[in-house]
Amino acid sequence: MELAERLLRGDKRAAARLITLVENKDEEAFEILKKIYNKSGKAYIIGITGPPGAGKSTLTDKLVKFLRKEDKKIGIIAVDPTSPFTGGSILGDRVRMTDLSLDRGVFIRSMGTRGHLGGLSESTQAAIKILDIYGCDYIFIETVGVGQSEVDIVKTCDTTIMVMVPGLGDDIQAIKAGIMEIGDVFAVNKADRDGAKRTAREIEMMLDFNKSDWRPPVELVVATENKGISELVEQIKKHKNYLEETGEKEARRTENCKNEIIDLVQQKLMNVLLDKSNREEKIDELAKKVATRKIDPYTACEQIFERLK
Amino acid sequence: MELAERLLRGDKRAAARLITLVENKDEEAFEILKKIYNKSGKAYIIGITGPPGAGKSTLTDKLVKFLRKEDKKIGIIAVDPTSPFTGGSILGDRVRMTDLSLDRGVFIRSMGTRGHLGGLSESTQAAIKILDIYGCDYIFIETVGVGQSEVDIVKTCDTTIMVMVPGLGDDIQAIKAGIMEIGDVFAVNKADRDGAKRTAREIEMMLDFNKSDWRPPVELVVATENKGISELVEQIKKHKNYLEETGEKEARRTENCKNEIIDLVQQKLMNVLLDKSNREEKIDELAKKVATRKIDPYTACEQIFERLK
Repeated sequence: MELAERLLRGDKRAAARLITLVENKDEEAFEILKKIYNKSGKAYIIGITGPPGAGKSTLTDKLVKFLRKEDKKIGIIAVDPTSPFTGGSILGDRVRMTDLSLDRGVFIRSMGTRGHLGGLSESTQAAIKILDIYGCDYIFIETVGVGQSEVDIVKTCDTTIMVMVPGLGDDIQAIKAGIMEIGDVFAVNKADRDGAKRTAREIEMMLDFNKSDWRPPVELVVATENKGISELVEQIKKHKNYLEETGEKEARRTENCKNEIIDLVQQKLMNVLLDKSNREEKIDELAKKVATRKIDPYTACEQIFERLK
Repeated sequence: MELAERLLRGDKRAAARLITLVENKDEEAFEILKKIYNKSGKAYIIGITGPPGAGKSTLTDKLVKFLRKEDKKIGIIAVDPTSPFTGGSILGDRVRMTDLSLDRGVFIRSMGTRGHLGGLSESTQAAIKILDIYGCDYIFIETVGVGQSEVDIVKTCDTTIMVMVPGLGDDIQAIKAGIMEIGDVFAVNKADRDGAKRTAREIEMMLDFNKSDWRPPVELVVATENKGISELVEQIKKHKNYLEETGEKEARRTENCKNEIIDLVQQKLMNVLLDKSNREEKIDELAKKVATRKIDPYTACEQIFERLK
């Protein structure tokens, strides 16, 4: 329990160590988390998402620097996909935000997707808890994709900032990305470029379909020049107040916990399944039969399912 | 079994009807598929993916028109995310490729994500089988995102075309998207724009890390002007030959079947779980306890898991 005590005292290296352990699916780390989970819940979780090239890292950087002036303790988790070529998280902390990483009040961590069966979500959720207990006031979760797994991750946040840029293609392409509906606050970054106002207008039009009591604001920002950052922070705080005053925050967190429990059960079920079935080489055998049309995949599924009982 | 017979005779309306039924998770539709699954396996499956705004729809349109000149029968499945605001597939067939949809040799269908628990993959896989049995020579699967769920879908393809465009941001952002490693053929679309050659060069550099026997080619195309389309088709056919000559096609399809079986089992397990647990309102109750820090999510997961046994 030494690690737990060190984390509770706000020891940065203990936090880093525990996150590595949960990434490695170390059981002891989860035992520690179980014991100190009740110390979590104080940090405010902010998701940063949007299409590649939108400038999410830079924007996160500026937002964090702004909040540091208020002497807030900040955690940043950058969720990166893993390349099967390199076998590791491509980004790494080294290539980004190097000055921030020298700031003792900021904790930065990149997390990659290892394997395909939902492990990222589990590690990220655990890392959030660790940084929460470590004492962060705000935790930023920055994702890189625009797909379902990224959406799932930002859905665990209190406030999600959707970062857009001008010139991403026609309206339909933007809508197609299916990312519009998860933004609580919209930032049109690189707003010094042509078409920024048009992009903002298109987002506003989309938001006219929004039925929620909270109308997501759309802010024009130029992250590289620090323009619009204070306004964006203002909007985050407004959304935070909205969530707290309406009781929406507790409702949202309960919903998030529900999703987390379901994810955990799903993960555990899959582990049991793959364990049992791989040992018997059953799945490989069935896959060959399905590929050669000897049986169909639905029957194969039923055969495995029977075995699990 | 009337639908099955009509599908086997190449009845377009039967194909459309069956796809609707699998989207609605109609059990009878899957019973039909089980019975005629052994008639599938002849179509060649091509995935089209890449970031929003890359011009994937236009490129698909041109590729299909090219193959139509060879009198091939084509199926197109456009995988769209569903907006919680509108509750339906945003795109719809209507707004795109209207002239193609008048071509009797082309079957176009948009499919949306309904719910969060992996239903899209299941319906898309079933739709591929249906169009295969219907008699398509080529089936195009066009996805819109760059996240894990889209990756999972294109991984079910024989040849995947990764569509990139100039000006998507710096190198790192492109790599971060984590989409480079699933392309068998790369198309740099909008190649009349500044920076197209640079983008192609960056992709080539990335591909130097590729350890496979197949070196993915990188083609410059301008889909709107039909430039580079025949070269792209040539590359698709080369990749097809490579897969067939090396036995890689069977290996890949077996691997895809394995993934499909695992997905199906996972889906089925979740259905059982949600059924049992929702009835007992157990998950909601646990989620509240987790949100208020009365218990931790890992213990909640174990409690549900115990109940499943």
